[in-house]
Amino acid sequence: MTSSDKPGNAADAPAETSGATSATGVAAQDWATAAADPQYRAAVVDLLGALAYGELAAFERLAEDAKLAPTLADKAELAKMASAEFHHFERLRDRLAEIGEEPTEAMEPFVAAYDGFHKQTDPSDWLEGLVKAYVGDSIASDFYREVAARLDSDTRELVLAVLDDTGHAGFAVEKVRAAIDADPRVGGRLALWARRLMGEALSQSQRVVADRDALSTMLVGGVADGFDLAEVGRMFSRITEAHTKRMAALGLAA
Amino acid sequence: MTSSDKPGNAADAPAETSGATSATGVAAQDWATAAADPQYRAAVVDLLGALAYGELAAFERLAEDAKLAPTLADKAELAKMASAEFHHFERLRDRLAEIGEEPTEAMEPFVAAYDGFHKQTDPSDWLEGLVKAYVGDSIASDFYREVAARLDSDTRELVLAVLDDTGHAGFAVEKVRAAIDADPRVGGRLALWARRLMGEALSQSQRVVADRDALSTMLVGGVADGFDLAEVGRMFSRITEAHTKRMAALGLAA
Repeated sequence: MTSSDKPGNAADAPAETSGATSATGVAAQDWATAAADPQYRAAVVDLLGALAYGELAAFERLAEDAKLAPTLADKAELAKMASAEFHHFERLRDRLAEIGEEPTEAMEPFVAAYDGFHKQTDPSDWLEGLVKAYVGDSIASDFYREVAARLDSDTRELVLAVLDDTGHAGFAVEKVRAAIDADPRVGGRLALWARRLMGEALSQSQRVVADRDALSTMLVGGVADGFDLAEVGRMFSRITEAHTKRMAALGLAA
Repeated sequence: MTSSDKPGNAADAPAETSGATSATGVAAQDWATAAADPQYRAAVVDLLGALAYGELAAFERLAEDAKLAPTLADKAELAKMASAEFHHFERLRDRLAEIGEEPTEAMEPFVAAYDGFHKQTDPSDWLEGLVKAYVGDSIASDFYREVAARLDSDTRELVLAVLDDTGHAGFAVEKVRAAIDADPRVGGRLALWARRLMGEALSQSQRVVADRDALSTMLVGGVADGFDLAEVGRMFSRITEAHTKRMAALGLAA
């Protein structure tokens, strides 16, 4: 989907983001310049590792959810999303290799969080799988936008390129709407499911934020000594709010 | 892998193939001309439907087997193969749509056979998954070569293009060899597994051959009224023999 399809997209609002960016000035630098700061470099390696494993895990889960598809055409749609995630993974992994990092090592610290998320949110049917695909795609897109402004020009270009290529979940919206129209009770069940997805995503993210200082510091605008926990909270709030609005637009107000 | 990697590749041998082709003359025709024969048209729709669903099913299973990977790098390799299969599926599906066929309808008749095969050959560990990926890739490649010579020029071009892009299983060979070197008993177990894979593949194929007259007739060289069961048997023999030689080369002689 394009950003205009998404009510309350996180990219529309946050003045804090651009403020923080001009303060650090990283956005005006290219990778070679910005990476001279070891803390910034560590943060980007973390970010690329986290995004790369996120895409690989998403590939795996979407491919698995494709098995729940009621028709071959639906199966093909989910397989297509999975394949797109794999290609994102390839770009992020190649970028890690290009800057001299071992992709596997960069991904390792984030395996437990993603695997934990997916384990806790195993869809029990096709509609839950679709809602998860849509929610995951949207949150990823919001997060990519939030973070892009804080990155050097080269890394930002990669993150925005991967972002541009998301939005394969548009078809999920149609299918979920049709299912709710056909049986409004489905909406209640899926609304609970969407809340659970967001809750798990937040709890896993908070774990990552607590563990990865360099990444967290960058996410909140590059304060030199330690990061501003309140600002991390505000970023999570913006993403949660955008999620809530999207769910409401989808007919999934709780 | 390239064909030179594969001892006893089915494409090297069969004089029957070219003989049968020049008899029917389809190979000298393009799709528009050849498809005027309704039986040929039906056979190609069957073939594209069978290949398309085979690729989609392979995508799904490889993606699932990726979960068994011992390392992130191994997982990424299997995910890459899965993604390649998905792109084959897209090409075959798009071709079906291009010639005015509903891809889903063309695939339906083959769902049971492929799903049956995969259900009966669920790998119990990573090495079994690798052997299955390699065996599947090789048999698909042999089959594509067998059938290419019997096709009109447009369909042949598509089949050969998809074939050219297979061979992502090369890494599987290395891993399996290393595992057998480390523990020769593994070879015995995997040899049995490879035989079971081939047995299941043959039994599902024979079911398809029995059910789909137009396709079977084309596969054996386009005899107008009914097909030559002995020639189908010879094609299966060639593919089985190539498989046996490959397994021996891999250290999996039973």
